[in-house]
Parts: sequence; structure tokens; C-alpha cells
Amino acid sequence: MGEFELIRRHFQHALRPAGVALGNGDDCALLAPTAGQQLAVSTDMLVEGRHFLPTVPPEALGHKALAVNLSDLAAMGAQPLAFTLALALPRADDAWLKAFARGLLALADAHGCALVGGDTTAGPLNLCLTVFGQVPPGQALRRDAAQDGDDLYVSGTLGDARLALEAFRGEWAAAVALDGPVWTRVRHRLERPTPRVALGQALRGVAHACADVSDGLLGDLGHILAASRLGAEVWVDTLLASDAVSPAVRALPLAQALTCVLAGGDDYELVFSAPPAARAAVTRAAQRSGTPVTRIGRFTGRAPARAHLCHADGARFELPAGLALSGFDHFA
Amino acid sequence: MGEFELIRRHFQHALRPAGVALGNGDDCALLAPTAGQQLAVSTDMLVEGRHFLPTVPPEALGHKALAVNLSDLAAMGAQPLAFTLALALPRADDAWLKAFARGLLALADAHGCALVGGDTTAGPLNLCLTVFGQVPPGQALRRDAAQDGDDLYVSGTLGDARLALEAFRGEWAAAVALDGPVWTRVRHRLERPTPRVALGQALRGVAHACADVSDGLLGDLGHILAASRLGAEVWVDTLLASDAVSPAVRALPLAQALTCVLAGGDDYELVFSAPPAARAAVTRAAQRSGTPVTRIGRFTGRAPARAHLCHADGARFELPAGLALSGFDHFA
Repeated sequence: MGEFELIRRHFQHALRPAGVALGNGDDCALLAPTAGQQLAVSTDMLVEGRHFLPTVPPEALGHKALAVNLSDLAAMGAQPLAFTLALALPRADDAWLKAFARGLLALADAHGCALVGGDTTAGPLNLCLTVFGQVPPGQALRRDAAQDGDDLYVSGTLGDARLALEAFRGEWAAAVALDGPVWTRVRHRLERPTPRVALGQALRGVAHACADVSDGLLGDLGHILAASRLGAEVWVDTLLASDAVSPAVRALPLAQALTCVLAGGDDYELVFSAPPAARAAVTRAAQRSGTPVTRIGRFTGRAPARAHLCHADGARFELPAGLALSGFDHFA
Repeated sequence: MGEFELIRRHFQHALRPAGVALGNGDDCALLAPTAGQQLAVSTDMLVEGRHFLPTVPPEALGHKALAVNLSDLAAMGAQPLAFTLALALPRADDAWLKAFARGLLALADAHGCALVGGDTTAGPLNLCLTVFGQVPPGQALRRDAAQDGDDLYVSGTLGDARLALEAFRGEWAAAVALDGPVWTRVRHRLERPTPRVALGQALRGVAHACADVSDGLLGDLGHILAASRLGAEVWVDTLLASDAVSPAVRALPLAQALTCVLAGGDDYELVFSAPPAARAAVTRAAQRSGTPVTRIGRFTGRAPARAHLCHADGARFELPAGLALSGFDHFA
């Protein structure tokens, strides 16, 4: 199977939204965003053994490769429009490609996001997607827009993906012991994350700053804090007791639970700030988008760029001895 | 050195054209193309050992990684605006990154093309760039726009990059024997190709169809022929005798010269069609952009999707016995 036959067989995408003037097959695709809108652009590279396990089902991998990119659009409040896919493959395995493309294009269809171009080559397995969305000027949810006194929110649940990863790694007894529907659910959270695209758009004009939680809550919140030059209180026991933490994560030994929730990675939730006056609007945005949202702290002008782990009354939350938490850093 | 420090140290790009509303550092970059213009998008993935030799100087690799993407914009007649860079690195080598970024950003500056985002991860060396340009609606140079009777043109010179590659491979005696300024020049053509960005824009409203020659003249011309449902005569001896073939390539044994010129790969020239009435306009476009252009054949309604190798009088050009030419295909 040649490169062009491979593309023709697996990656022809019938979806053609109004904002796509020319899809794949030429030197470039041509995008025509709605007049006056800005184009949000993000790119993510996924490497086998680092971003996914060699054993992941290819359909789930196709889903996840696009999901992590859509999550970046969600974090800007952008509406998905199109994406490109560059793929290095050790070999052209027809069954693998078919399943991969099925997972990829099903999620693309669900979000009206057209595959408009790409590249295919031989090489160690590597997926690089670049995604395009549109957003009205001035309405993008930027990281530098948090304000002193804003509430701190997170969407969905945190930590399940890390729990599943630790189960695959085999080092946490409580993770390895997972089975039945609980295991199915946490594994699903690792392998088939749900990008919060509808919530991101619903938060335009409501939230101030927003980021997606891909490297762990503290790491990604840290980006907002650094960009906005603010600190934040994170009410750790409020968070642990809330619907933002699943019973499976809550049942872990405390150090493991905190690792999952505060520095888990692969959550693809949104962490955002909104003023106290917008609490009802945040609730409506959550309902309209069908996405749970939990208030877990607040932004402060003290100690810029640092997250303070504390109780809801402001008292310091003491981490278990020896526990080091950080944003995930690929070269640390 | 962490991922964020690596980006801060090497990939902060001061260039901020009017069409870039937000550069890197957030979940997405925000592009704001000139009102009414379409956005041309292309992505290319470069893998060590396949698209470049492990011995290539990193500064040249940085140049080439962007050049091959700018070449796709050139082939659409688009004006470069911005690009993203995703990078998988076996290790964070500061000297390598510094030189790579220098080559990359020097070419970016020369074309007013801003680095607006990206991704960095550990993994087998892999570079994936996605480039954005703008073009007025209806003026993009598409592959499907050639017309029966159009002239066939190619820019610059063909085959030098393949000659240099064969010198590195060590199998062609005439290639291995190259030295001095001739070797410097053909190596430069392989390692630091010149994307024909100014020519592409100058050909808007002049050329009909256009593609860039990345996989070899016959392969890329074949894309135009398939998309336009036309055949073409390629006047092989006219081409070999023209300025589109360097003396070093012309001096090769005929089979090797034909391989370089017709199926060389890595030329990053433009192959395009224009009506005979536009010959003076093509010449002006070539002069205005400082890019030589050679007329090497014509498009015909006979035998759609096939290139006929012939003499200028239409008589069939007989290939040397045993020579197989084709577009380069990564999985063939």
C-alpha cells in the first residue's frame, strides 16, 4: 500500500464545514473562517511509550490524538473547524489504520471538525495533529485574564486517568486491584478523554482565564497564575470531597489520591477563573454544556504565580511527608 | 533543562506580524488573517534517516524544516503568516537546539512568518511543522486548474539535491567524485533549499495550476495531471539542455541524470501551467521574483493523468533500458 493509497483508503473525510474552502489533496488546505472571527491554532505531538502505551487499542488512540487537541480549543472557548494529521508509522498496517481512523474521524464528526490535510511517512510511531477553531475577537479565554478575587473552578473529574496509568504500570496495589465497571470507567478516562468543547464555548463572556488540565491541575493552574501574575488558594479537602474526585481515586492512600488529583495528567478538564458575581452564569454554562463544574478555591493577589494548598478556611493543607507534586515536565 | 525552559531559551520568536493576535504561551495561538483572505494550511513531518541524514548540520535542518513547508505555501501562491513547530527529541542538547533554532528562525524572519506555538516532547527525533499563509479567495494556485493547451513550466533547477544525496549514499561514482564549489553548491541545494515563495505569489492570476516539486518532477506533475484530468508532454532533451539542469547533473551518465531531473526529490521548485497567452506575464513574474523559470512542455487533453516523455517535436523519448522512474512513495 503506497502513501497516497493509504490516505485515500483511510483518511478521506466526507465532512466539509462551511469554513473549509479546500480540503486535502492539494499543496495546502484552504480555510475560510466566518468573517471577522479569529482562528485558534494548537498542535500536539504524541509519541509511543510517552503519551500512550504500545498496547492501547488503535481506535482509542485515534480518539485520544484528536481529543487532546480539541481540549486546547476548548480551553480557548473556540469552536472546532478543522485539523491536520501527520503520521509516522513503522509500517502500513491496514487493520491498525482502519481502527485508528475510525476513532479519529468519529470524534471529528461529533465536533464538526474536518480533516483537511496531513502527511504520512515511515518512522517510529508518532502522531502530530494541528487543530483549528474559530472564536470572535476579544472572546478567547486566555491564561492571562484571571483577576484578584476570582473563583477557581475545575470541570468534570480529576485523577482517574492517572489511576488507570498506574494500574498499567503495576506499581500501586490499589490501582492494580481495580476491576469490573470501576476499572472500565477509569481506563476509559485515560484512553478516551472527553474534550470539554461545549463548556469552553459556554464560558465565553463568563469566565476570565482558562486552561486545559493536561499535565496536572497544579501545573496547568500554574500557567494561569504565572500569566495573570496572581496566586490562588486551592481548597484541597473541599476538592477531595467533591464530585470532581471519583470514589475510586478517593479510596486511594492519601499521597496517591493527591498525586492523581493535583498532578495526575491526562485529565483534559478545564481549570478556569470567574468572578463571584458570575456564579449563576457558571452554573448555567455547566448545565447548558452538560458538564459538571466544581468550585475549588479562589485567586488572590498574594504570592504571585503560586498555588497555596489549604483548607476552605485558609489554613495550610499539610502534604503527607515525602510527597513531591509538580506539573509534568518532559525533560525535568 | 525543562520543556518550558527549552522553549523559552530557544524558540521565543520576536516577530509578530499584524495577522497574529496571540503568539505562543497559551493553549492556542490566535490568528487574525487580513479581512476576507483565506488561510492556506500545510503540514510536513520530517523523520531522521528518511527526510534528513543524522549528520546534517542542525542549522541547515532548522532551515530545511521550515523551507519544505514554505514551499507548500509557495505552490498555492500564499503569503506566509505563521507556523507551529512540534519537536520530538532524544535528549535536550542545548548546542544542537541553538543551531537548529537559528536556522529555523532566520528563514522565518526572512519570510515574515512567526513561530506561534508548538509542542516539545522526548522521543525519536521528529519534526512536525504546520504553516499558515494567506491568499485572496479564488486566487490560490490549485492542482486541478490546468487547461488543455497550457504551457508546462518549472522554476529554478532540478536534480541537484538528488545528486548530493547520492554523494552521501556513496553509490554513484560521479556523485562521490564531486568536490570544491560544485559539491558545496549541490549540497546546499539538498540541505538548504530555497522555497519559491515570491514566485508563487507573483504567479497569482498568471498561472493556472501549480504544485511544488518535493517528490520529483514526474510525481508532482502527476498530481496536477490527475487533479486536472489532463496529460502532458515533457520535452526531455529541451529540459536537459536548459538552465533548469545544472552542469553537474548534465555531466552524469544519462540514466542518473534522468533520475535526478525527473524523479530526484527534494528540489522544492514549482511546476506550473499557464496559457500560451501568458508567456510574457510568466517572464515578468519570474523577473519580479528573481526566480528563473523554464518552459519544458505542454498540457494536452490526450491520455489523462499521464506524462509523456518526448522530444520537442512530439516524438517519444526513449528511456535508457532498465531505468524505472516514479514519484517517490514512502510505502511503495
